[in-house]
Amino acid sequence: MNVISVESHNKLVQAAYEARGFQADEARAAAEMCAAATWHGNRTHNALKALHLDDLFGSVAGGCVPGAEIEVVENRFSAAETWNSNKKLGQAVAKQAFERAIELAEKHGVGIVSVDNCFHYLWGGGYVIEAAKRGYIAYTNCTSTLAEVVPFCGKTPTLGTNPHSWGFPTTDALGYPICIDWATSTVAMGRVQQLKREGKELPQLAAVDSDGKPTIDPNEVSALLPFGAHKGYGLSLINEITAAFIGGSLPTLRGHAQPGTDVKTTTAFFFQIIHPDAISGGAFADGKDQSGNVKAVLENILGEGNRNCILPGQLEAEAAKKSEEAGGLLFSDAELAELNEIAASLGFEPLSAI
Amino acid sequence: MNVISVESHNKLVQAAYEARGFQADEARAAAEMCAAATWHGNRTHNALKALHLDDLFGSVAGGCVPGAEIEVVENRFSAAETWNSNKKLGQAVAKQAFERAIELAEKHGVGIVSVDNCFHYLWGGGYVIEAAKRGYIAYTNCTSTLAEVVPFCGKTPTLGTNPHSWGFPTTDALGYPICIDWATSTVAMGRVQQLKREGKELPQLAAVDSDGKPTIDPNEVSALLPFGAHKGYGLSLINEITAAFIGGSLPTLRGHAQPGTDVKTTTAFFFQIIHPDAISGGAFADGKDQSGNVKAVLENILGEGNRNCILPGQLEAEAAKKSEEAGGLLFSDAELAELNEIAASLGFEPLSAI
Repeated sequence: MNVISVESHNKLVQAAYEARGFQADEARAAAEMCAAATWHGNRTHNALKALHLDDLFGSVAGGCVPGAEIEVVENRFSAAETWNSNKKLGQAVAKQAFERAIELAEKHGVGIVSVDNCFHYLWGGGYVIEAAKRGYIAYTNCTSTLAEVVPFCGKTPTLGTNPHSWGFPTTDALGYPICIDWATSTVAMGRVQQLKREGKELPQLAAVDSDGKPTIDPNEVSALLPFGAHKGYGLSLINEITAAFIGGSLPTLRGHAQPGTDVKTTTAFFFQIIHPDAISGGAFADGKDQSGNVKAVLENILGEGNRNCILPGQLEAEAAKKSEEAGGLLFSDAELAELNEIAASLGFEPLSAI
Repeated sequence: MNVISVESHNKLVQAAYEARGFQADEARAAAEMCAAATWHGNRTHNALKALHLDDLFGSVAGGCVPGAEIEVVENRFSAAETWNSNKKLGQAVAKQAFERAIELAEKHGVGIVSVDNCFHYLWGGGYVIEAAKRGYIAYTNCTSTLAEVVPFCGKTPTLGTNPHSWGFPTTDALGYPICIDWATSTVAMGRVQQLKREGKELPQLAAVDSDGKPTIDPNEVSALLPFGAHKGYGLSLINEITAAFIGGSLPTLRGHAQPGTDVKTTTAFFFQIIHPDAISGGAFADGKDQSGNVKAVLENILGEGNRNCILPGQLEAEAAKKSEEAGGLLFSDAELAELNEIAASLGFEPLSAI
């Protein structure tokens, strides 16, 4: 792997966003979240994916508006705000929304920011890991750009891959935050394409053909299935229903921007912060403090017989440690080559490995 | 099926709880939640199960204390409370906690009540359906009494079946509230016993033998598996970690009450209400109102090609309609016979079908 300094990576990615018309602060937020993904070993949601999303659905297609201003929608509540992000770049919106949710939670114990008219925030895990490192219980869900998943027992894709991300402040207890973060489809469509290229089969019950019959042949795949049958279907619906209460429109329209019309094709975001003191009963066994109690419970879960198990967030923490030891972001040759194509197109020198 | 009036059912169940030393209001709350389960077609979490839970883990074993008083733990937050329920009967606690969370959400947009030192609340779905009917977005999770589930890739059961229950106020949109409500194990241990009696096989990846190897033979089952591999494992961990922040102790101790010691063996509850106005951006497509938008989104999801799909909560709503049409609670002959054993033991006349 090639080690690229965070600084030079962010400078390039920021410039790439600015070249598309984004403001410096939006571009910086986007670059930082791309770096956070790579730092934590997430190779599917890095800068290449972020810029690709903008190419396909964003500032060119009309799904995202550089320089858009967030409007706070008035309501009568003290711990929950709703924003209209006016198609602002998702990474900038999500960072700001979590900051506001933290302020609300510091005062009220819990803070919620719901956002309408959104454009992709890249990787929910990145935000909840950051908030959890700062001591908060963080949660976000969003609707995905495209409807690629069929409801349980259906055959037409009308649901997004709709991810959920939870972060827990377990750094004192474990050395890293627990991060539970996944899409509600069994696999992503990108994985289907990859298996097709490699001539490999899909896992069972990950996708359906055009008749709605489960298939393991990537060439036959028409749409994805939720994980865990009706349970994953329910989890995917949570994002759709939450978005519908916020202001999201029909899932099958999403991602198909129709500039110049008033057809609503945007996604919606939901952010929540809970202060751990606000759920503490204060009475932990054996005189422990809250963090010590969390540590004891997790050690009990991974005790005798379960030594091979890992905790969600552990792989991300191990990757972050490797990045730290290497002194930068780890990219494969192919990834670095793609980044350097972007560099060349912007008139930048190629990124040089440390 | 035999139709039993809600009134006579509740009178019997309330008397059964009072005979165990519970106060009238606790016993009434318990009876009402048993009736709600049967009314909605839930045949696993009815009065027979509720009283069986008390037999095994409750007022006799020391896991539940009739007449216990709830204490509110002081904190500095306005929208999140923590209670010590002092092992009070879970149904009474859960009803009261949701009432308080609703009060908090009316003021702040969101309200959370976390509860330490708990005893089984029977069926999370019942509470969220009730809150959703009243117009709120409701959520609860809890830790289960026993550790019967192995972590993903493990072999020792150290997790509860740890359910999650979400309710959405979709009565205007659909005629009934969406209710997403399930345990994070693939099946319940009761289902394993049932399949063993019937000489049938388990579904794939529902349970493991004592070596931690997946098995479909109910005779070989040593513990249950989370649904959906690492994703269901993460969802089960959410309950354990939330409980650990509240005050829950080691999962493997739970349910094994040790009266006369200070060993903590209780479960923990988490309740949350969100006011739908508090997440509304107010800008719904085609001039719709919030409820009309939710309806349009759900119709889009279940549109062409997905006519065979159902929504979570639909089966419960259909069962409730049958109960309403029948004018009471529907019990099988075997269930009625068991209820009448309880009636006889209390000196009651047998319940007579309508």
